[in-house]
Amino acid sequence: MSTEEQEKKDEFFMSRALQEAEAAYEEGEIPIGAVVVCRGRIIARAHNMTETLHDVTAHAEMQAITMAANSLGGKYLTDCTLYVTVEPCPMCAGALGWSQMARVVYGAPDIKRGYRTFAPLVLHPKTKVTAGVLADDCRDLMLRFFKERR
Amino acid sequence: MSTEEQEKKDEFFMSRALQEAEAAYEEGEIPIGAVVVCRGRIIARAHNMTETLHDVTAHAEMQAITMAANSLGGKYLTDCTLYVTVEPCPMCAGALGWSQMARVVYGAPDIKRGYRTFAPLVLHPKTKVTAGVLADDCRDLMLRFFKERR
Repeated sequence: MSTEEQEKKDEFFMSRALQEAEAAYEEGEIPIGAVVVCRGRIIARAHNMTETLHDVTAHAEMQAITMAANSLGGKYLTDCTLYVTVEPCPMCAGALGWSQMARVVYGAPDIKRGYRTFAPLVLHPKTKVTAGVLADDCRDLMLRFFKERR
Repeated sequence: MSTEEQEKKDEFFMSRALQEAEAAYEEGEIPIGAVVVCRGRIIARAHNMTETLHDVTAHAEMQAITMAANSLGGKYLTDCTLYVTVEPCPMCAGALGWSQMARVVYGAPDIKRGYRTFAPLVLHPKTKVTAGVLADDCRDLMLRFFKERR
C-alpha cells in the first residue's frame, strides 16, 4: 500500500472513531471514540461511557479492546489497529500493551493526561504508533465539550 | 488507630485478597487477587480472569474498581482502600488514579511489570501507598504458579 493509500485509509477509520466520539458528546460524555480494525474490517467500536456507567475504566479504548477480543475469540490483538480520537491515557496504553495491538493511530495529543508523558514505554515494543490523524477535528470536539460543559 | 492495629487490619484484608488469588490459581489464572474496603467493609472482591474471559483488561484490580463503583453508585473511590496481592501494572495503576482511590496496599513487588517502574506518577497525588503486606505469601503463590505452569 502506498503512503497516500494508507493515509486515506487512516482518515476513513478515524472518521468512524469520530462518529463514536460524537455519540459520546451527545450523551454528555467526554467525547472520545475508538474503533478496532482487523484485516480491513471494523470489529469493535466504542465511546467513552464513564459518566453513564459510573465507571472510570469505561474509556473508549478499554471497551474497544474487550469487544475486539470477544469478536476474535482470543485476547491478543496482534493483527489489529486501534483508532482513537485522542492520545490514550496510561490505563488505556497499558491495556493496549497487554493486548499486543499491532498499531495504534490517534488524533489529538493529550499533553496533560496522555501516556507519552506518564508512561512512554508501556505499549508493546512491536506496536507501531501514528499520531495526528484528523487531529483538528478530534481536538475541536473536545474543546467544544469543555467550553460548553465546564 | 495505632500502627500495630493498622498493620493487623492490613494483614486481615490482604489475607482476603490472597483468598481471591488462590481462587485464580485454582482456575489456571495468574494468581492475583484484590479486595476494596470502604469504611471497614469489603465492598468488592475479584481475581485475575484474563484467560477465562480472553480479555487482557480483566485484571483483579480493574474488576474490583468497577465492582466497588457499582456498589457505591459513584465512580470516585475517595473513601476506599484497594488491597492487591501484587504491585499493580500501569493499566491498573492508571485506573486507580482515575478512581482517586484513597489508599493502595499491595503485597509482592513486581519489578518487571509494575507501575513503579513504568508509570511512577500515575496514581492520584493524594493516594497513599503501602507495600509489602504479606509479601512472602503473595510472592510464593506467584512463584508456585509459574513453576508448575510454564
